[in-house]
Amino acid sequence: MTIDHTYHMTPEEFRRWGHEIIDWIADYRQRVEEYPVLSQVKPGDIRAALPPHPPQQGESMAAVLRDVDEIIMPGVTHWQSPNFFAYFPSNSSEPAILGDLLSSGIGIQGMLWATSPAATELETHVLDWLAEMLGLPGQFMSTSTGGGVVQDSASSATLTALLAARERTTGYRSNEAGVNNVDDVGRLVVYASTQAHSSIEKAARMAGIGSQNLRKIEVDETLAMRPDALAAQIERDLADGLTPAFVCANVGSTSTNAMDPVRAIGEICRDHDIWLHVDAAMSGSAAICPEFRFIHDGLELADSYCMNPHKWLFTTFDFDAFYVKDRGALIRALSILPEYLRNQATESGAVIDYRDWQIPLGRRFRALKLWLVIRHYGVEGLQHHVREHVVLAQNFRAWVEASNDFELAAPAPLNLVCFRHTGGDDVNQAIMDTLNASGRLYLTHTKVDDKLTLRMSIGQMYTQRRHVEAAWQAIQDAAGSTL
Amino acid sequence: MTIDHTYHMTPEEFRRWGHEIIDWIADYRQRVEEYPVLSQVKPGDIRAALPPHPPQQGESMAAVLRDVDEIIMPGVTHWQSPNFFAYFPSNSSEPAILGDLLSSGIGIQGMLWATSPAATELETHVLDWLAEMLGLPGQFMSTSTGGGVVQDSASSATLTALLAARERTTGYRSNEAGVNNVDDVGRLVVYASTQAHSSIEKAARMAGIGSQNLRKIEVDETLAMRPDALAAQIERDLADGLTPAFVCANVGSTSTNAMDPVRAIGEICRDHDIWLHVDAAMSGSAAICPEFRFIHDGLELADSYCMNPHKWLFTTFDFDAFYVKDRGALIRALSILPEYLRNQATESGAVIDYRDWQIPLGRRFRALKLWLVIRHYGVEGLQHHVREHVVLAQNFRAWVEASNDFELAAPAPLNLVCFRHTGGDDVNQAIMDTLNASGRLYLTHTKVDDKLTLRMSIGQMYTQRRHVEAAWQAIQDAAGSTL
Repeated sequence: MTIDHTYHMTPEEFRRWGHEIIDWIADYRQRVEEYPVLSQVKPGDIRAALPPHPPQQGESMAAVLRDVDEIIMPGVTHWQSPNFFAYFPSNSSEPAILGDLLSSGIGIQGMLWATSPAATELETHVLDWLAEMLGLPGQFMSTSTGGGVVQDSASSATLTALLAARERTTGYRSNEAGVNNVDDVGRLVVYASTQAHSSIEKAARMAGIGSQNLRKIEVDETLAMRPDALAAQIERDLADGLTPAFVCANVGSTSTNAMDPVRAIGEICRDHDIWLHVDAAMSGSAAICPEFRFIHDGLELADSYCMNPHKWLFTTFDFDAFYVKDRGALIRALSILPEYLRNQATESGAVIDYRDWQIPLGRRFRALKLWLVIRHYGVEGLQHHVREHVVLAQNFRAWVEASNDFELAAPAPLNLVCFRHTGGDDVNQAIMDTLNASGRLYLTHTKVDDKLTLRMSIGQMYTQRRHVEAAWQAIQDAAGSTL
Repeated sequence: MTIDHTYHMTPEEFRRWGHEIIDWIADYRQRVEEYPVLSQVKPGDIRAALPPHPPQQGESMAAVLRDVDEIIMPGVTHWQSPNFFAYFPSNSSEPAILGDLLSSGIGIQGMLWATSPAATELETHVLDWLAEMLGLPGQFMSTSTGGGVVQDSASSATLTALLAARERTTGYRSNEAGVNNVDDVGRLVVYASTQAHSSIEKAARMAGIGSQNLRKIEVDETLAMRPDALAAQIERDLADGLTPAFVCANVGSTSTNAMDPVRAIGEICRDHDIWLHVDAAMSGSAAICPEFRFIHDGLELADSYCMNPHKWLFTTFDFDAFYVKDRGALIRALSILPEYLRNQATESGAVIDYRDWQIPLGRRFRALKLWLVIRHYGVEGLQHHVREHVVLAQNFRAWVEASNDFELAAPAPLNLVCFRHTGGDDVNQAIMDTLNASGRLYLTHTKVDDKLTLRMSIGQMYTQRRHVEAAWQAIQDAAGSTL
């Protein structure tokens, strides 16, 4: 059987350029510390270097790779640098890269079990493995009433959970009638702490519930949601004829890594039959170490849960692991079956069709990358790195606490340290700008008690003690030169 | 600078296994015709072959790749087979695989311009290139009031468009107040043809508008939306005090490739100030050939448009190109700016932050794969393949028309031929089951006029005349053995 390669890349070319790009990646990752972490280009610089029109004739990969080096790389902010301390980590480990490469090469689309049974079954299986590694309650296993699914991000997981909650709360009628047209259901209300991620508010908007019906519950001195304040707000809303529908608890807020008390919140949700979603996007990974599993205390009271292996478990973006306790509720909220998707396996009811567990229809074979990560590192290897990052962060925290010029701005239970110079917002802004412009490291900020606060987020897979020490030195130097 | 590789994959191992997987993919794609196209495993077969618990210690990549061959591949339905005629194509070309590999290797997260300027600027630029290649109206270029953004799928693009429409129609108040709580706005109504993709109904549900407020407009004998029926329904809804908000026109329906008349629909939308979204997920690719650009007639009347390079333009899933006419309306509908995402570039207003153009926050560097595809093939190479696929489909259509036993079930304007045996539903079901169980090819069905109809979708990148001829022979043989 001859294959016609007219205009296509031949197998020989693919091998050649594939090997070349693998080597390019290996080289890049060995020299990644040499780049300024935060890209130093100005708006428009990259576009100005690109030809205004697409090529009529094909070009060589050699030309493309030259442009990657010369045009693209100066515009890259190096998330894979060990000196990346901004936001949260987004690790792309070598086994995950290879898993994703396999996924692209096999090139299936896993919307239905039938469109590639292995994609669905490996996903179910690996998410059960992950649940076991994290010590999640049994309700989230596929072998019980629940199960896991890969979403692109925690934002999508939150929206998905909220849609299921909206439906369940309205007796599965809001999908038909539209939100707030369900006559005997009062306006729906959603709850999260004042520290919750913007994705909660975005989800409330997208789901048609509205920001106005999102209650931002006050927090205690650790920036964790106050259960008494939540309970009181629920009572007020009930008294006003509204319908509490959804609570999102954060296990590690994005701003400061604040830990909402899941058990106390869960008991309130249980008493009022409110859907509890637990967002552990970054910190959930810590639970692979038994000594950090306290963050999940009370999780058996939750209806849904998510954490992101693409953050702190080395699994190339995008990979959010989203679990539900009652897969029936999720599927009922999201399923529509047109004729052109009907097939024997679906109608038999014996299989999972993950299209009904998510917003889009199509899906990549993303389970491969987590499978390769778990098999390459083993549970032990992943635990080793999570523990190392927590030790490094706790060292950094101790240096801040021992310092005369800097102070902690929030508890640092795991691998995020929020701190600030005592000189005020302008000084902190200047320190951050100096550091980020230097290219030596990259960190970002938040506000705590309305004060500008620096965030030292430690979780890049190659970050070692020497990087954190150098960062602390650079921070002190920047403070010195600023004052 | 030494890098500590404890538990990590060393650069040497990464090169070795990277080369190995590249070669594995090259081999796979050369022998892909040898596999049964539709996986023949039974529910549970794959999971039963996987160990129940994750490994404590890391394993070798050799063991993993052995399992890919022995456990995973039997469970794969081969979307990259030239004998894949099911659904729509989902092509993963070699340049796209390499672009995606680069993306994983660079490992950035492009939620903001600042988090990697090159990711944002290459995306804007390549989507302008694509708009030019497709001959889209100028309003969709980033250099005007609009612009393009990569979404994972057309489903997400539809939801995104609907959210923007919902907000614009309510004077930017539904995000705050919740859908249908905006006092002086009647209930919102959404319109699509009876043939529209299930994602329209799913989007109406997710956005809180409700299926009940989706009007499925009747179609003409070509299965295209009837503009007169649309206009009449809008008038009835207005008379009932409702608020028409959104029309989705299909340029190539999923079921039968029916082409809604965009110009006539667009004129109605313009007159009533209704958001018009045009979904050209599969067929949009045809417009890279000037002779097929008629499918976009009237597109200047649309507010948003999407098509999927991951279907017929060889760009590994996931890659939907979504364009809007007024980026301000989109951003206003989707933006929330928490403190921890504030940065100088964003506040300057001089850059695009694509997080405000989509549902999730995080995003991969997906522009690389389309960039590599366009540069490898050139416009000319892509045109060549699209033309070839249309020729093959039109040949197939002629064979059906010339046959005594089979008939066309719908017009076949491009590369999808809907046809059926004249013997009725049971015969057609038996033919399909026989073919798919044979492993020789894979095709799926729909219903037209309530009759079971087979879909011959031609667009896999390696499909040649001999595959289509063999398929037609197999179809006739299956009919023969069935009767």
